[in-house]
Amino acid sequence: MASLIDPTAAGFLLAENRSMPMHVGGLHLFERPEGAGRGYAREMYESMRDVSEVAPLFLKRPHRSLTTAGQLVWVEDDEFDIEHHVRHAALPKPGRIRELLELSGRMHATRLGWERPLWEATIIEGLRDNRVGLYTKTHHALVDGVSAMRLLQSVLTTDPTRTGMPAPWDAATRRAPRPPAEPVPLSELPVRTVRSALGIAAEAAGMPSAFTRTMTRSVRNETSAVSLRAPRTMFNQRITGSRRFAAQDWPIERLRAIGKATGTTINDVVLAMCSGAVRAYLIELDALPDAPLVAMVPVGLNAKDSHLASTEGGNAVGSVMCQLGTDLADPVDRLITIHASMSDGKQALSTMTPTQILAMSALGQAPAILAPMLRVEGFVRPPYNLVISNVPGPRSAHYWNGARLTGTYPLSIPIHGMALNITCTSYDGRLSFGLIGCRRTVPRLQRLLTHLDDELSALELAAGV
Amino acid sequence: MASLIDPTAAGFLLAENRSMPMHVGGLHLFERPEGAGRGYAREMYESMRDVSEVAPLFLKRPHRSLTTAGQLVWVEDDEFDIEHHVRHAALPKPGRIRELLELSGRMHATRLGWERPLWEATIIEGLRDNRVGLYTKTHHALVDGVSAMRLLQSVLTTDPTRTGMPAPWDAATRRAPRPPAEPVPLSELPVRTVRSALGIAAEAAGMPSAFTRTMTRSVRNETSAVSLRAPRTMFNQRITGSRRFAAQDWPIERLRAIGKATGTTINDVVLAMCSGAVRAYLIELDALPDAPLVAMVPVGLNAKDSHLASTEGGNAVGSVMCQLGTDLADPVDRLITIHASMSDGKQALSTMTPTQILAMSALGQAPAILAPMLRVEGFVRPPYNLVISNVPGPRSAHYWNGARLTGTYPLSIPIHGMALNITCTSYDGRLSFGLIGCRRTVPRLQRLLTHLDDELSALELAAGV
Repeated sequence: MASLIDPTAAGFLLAENRSMPMHVGGLHLFERPEGAGRGYAREMYESMRDVSEVAPLFLKRPHRSLTTAGQLVWVEDDEFDIEHHVRHAALPKPGRIRELLELSGRMHATRLGWERPLWEATIIEGLRDNRVGLYTKTHHALVDGVSAMRLLQSVLTTDPTRTGMPAPWDAATRRAPRPPAEPVPLSELPVRTVRSALGIAAEAAGMPSAFTRTMTRSVRNETSAVSLRAPRTMFNQRITGSRRFAAQDWPIERLRAIGKATGTTINDVVLAMCSGAVRAYLIELDALPDAPLVAMVPVGLNAKDSHLASTEGGNAVGSVMCQLGTDLADPVDRLITIHASMSDGKQALSTMTPTQILAMSALGQAPAILAPMLRVEGFVRPPYNLVISNVPGPRSAHYWNGARLTGTYPLSIPIHGMALNITCTSYDGRLSFGLIGCRRTVPRLQRLLTHLDDELSALELAAGV
Repeated sequence: MASLIDPTAAGFLLAENRSMPMHVGGLHLFERPEGAGRGYAREMYESMRDVSEVAPLFLKRPHRSLTTAGQLVWVEDDEFDIEHHVRHAALPKPGRIRELLELSGRMHATRLGWERPLWEATIIEGLRDNRVGLYTKTHHALVDGVSAMRLLQSVLTTDPTRTGMPAPWDAATRRAPRPPAEPVPLSELPVRTVRSALGIAAEAAGMPSAFTRTMTRSVRNETSAVSLRAPRTMFNQRITGSRRFAAQDWPIERLRAIGKATGTTINDVVLAMCSGAVRAYLIELDALPDAPLVAMVPVGLNAKDSHLASTEGGNAVGSVMCQLGTDLADPVDRLITIHASMSDGKQALSTMTPTQILAMSALGQAPAILAPMLRVEGFVRPPYNLVISNVPGPRSAHYWNGARLTGTYPLSIPIHGMALNITCTSYDGRLSFGLIGCRRTVPRLQRLLTHLDDELSALELAAGV
């Protein structure tokens, strides 16, 4: 049975190429359960591989042919081969986090073939601290980053003694599917008929034209929520297909204390850490522009819609353009600027109609659609400089068949013109940062971790906590 | 400095896609030198990575732009990043050959990006027998399989005590480049102006037209060296981008004894082993056609030319179509049939002019050029069923800084219509078989190893050795 692929998902599929794969990833670290033997990683691999029935989301692959009249459709893979999708790998000695990040970056750089369902999961052994890694990779046409993380969470439990938890792709124990939320057709959007080079480029990439017109308008800063002007930076260039990944976490309590002392939110502090780190990184490379950088910050549409969408593996996020204050030398000045910018942006978003928010949401999480536009010659300024997401996760420790999840780090999608992506998630009292960049365009990406750490300390000092 | 990419190399570049990467690989196994510590694999990795100057062949990448008028040219990668090319990996426990083949197959399935020089090398640790693996991957536009193996051999020595051997890509100790042999321009080939769907397809893929006409004639069986008719088999289908790799070696002495007792060559025995193994494999799957399978067998043009070409990283091989006798139940009948077919083919090749051989040679090692033709609808029969190559290697044990090379196994290129490739090489008294296939089109590829072993025993029994 073939089913039509929705335009947003199709956009992600059609825009990808060797330099710009369109999948989201997650790196998860588990502690071995007490009494686990030397072969525990293999046992974990085998129990994730040997599922009796795989859920439909993990069985479908994109297909386009004469019989589908050139339309992209989902079809079930009738030669499904679980060993292609669930893999077992190891780190070379000494098995530090450094080797783990290197391997994760490499795995994240290879493209998923359309001949098979668009996901992979790799159990990683050989960490010298004896933890076991799980790297997951799912095409953005299947799920967004939020949904991807929830997929794993759905098979975790807070009970360390509970066993019999299935793999995330196991059909047997998954909740019954709910009917998908009915989206407003994009063709009903009120749009101006603006024709431009941008519009043509997006249409060439297979985008529906009404949608393109809305996008063009947004990119041209004609809507209030995207009214900032971003400078050119080294991040806003064409990228290559190789990746570098950096990840680290910090106690949420440290961020909360700063927020409390300064009247800002934890998310503001996350953005301020990123702002300070990016500023320091660019200064080191003598590449800081005079004008402040602008980050695109995805925000949830609303809890209920978002939840519905994620259950179905759909996409449902809006976005705010945040002025990062990278021109300001003082960490607290930057934090205050960010706080004001986020408040303005959310205010603008809240006065939009649901239809307008939907259009924004497409902008917010549609690098596939934005990318062809950024490539157009004559486009002088990028609409923003980088994407910074913060996705809430579980507050307490979770387990998978007795193995405690100790950390979880997102890997998102760099695109042409947006070579760096920072995605954060909270888990069990810690805030995890996952930084993914084009290996060539963003050199010495790992430096940003040091700068994030320095910035957190600087904010604490300045806020007097 | 940009230099033009020759038409054959350009063909390999233009024909590749996600399902059909065009690189050749090699898996090499080394014994640790006496007294090597636990960190030996890392030391080997570091000494292969930390080269003072990289040879030009390993610095060039393909490039096409408006300034090159759409022509494909080689340019030097001015942001060369050795850590992208030289890698360090490990096997999960228990570190058997099985895990090594799985990892090699996965690495062979990912495509080399054009943004960088077209090669990778991975040092692999974690084998339970304590050997260290080296998987190398080089685009066919740079070197053919023979040249790829010679590149490694050029930095090996028969002296187990010798140190200071460089990495294969090190410029410092490589021989001075010789001027490339002057090839006969393809435009000077005597060709009939045959227009056909095949010709159009190949032209669409960017092939020079005179060359296309020669190819079309060859595929249509109008030259004596390709005058066989191959049946349709399961190997002659579209392939996917995933791969499975199997490898094993046997003492050459066993093959030589069979050849001596039956008046055939070692190469004939190699082909007979493959014939019997493929026959048994297809019988198991109830997929053996009535008509005998035909193998395309590359043969060296001549020792001197071949050597010259390999020094420069060029391609220089002719080919013979071999009737494998898979319709015959008796192993010796198959061997005799193969011997006769190879003698006829080589005879035909020897009566051709150098120009004709050059055209054949392009056929012989140009899957990139053949592939678009095999895809054309209405093409009823494949020109041959699989490729079986046998590349001679060093006769004695070789070392790299005291580490003894104990085995070397080729990984070649499956293409649409040719899902299975068998490449063999000799080394230190053993003949190594490397079997690479599309993971989906050639299920249970590993079974072929058992069948190869059975066939060798059956030939020994029948030949009375």
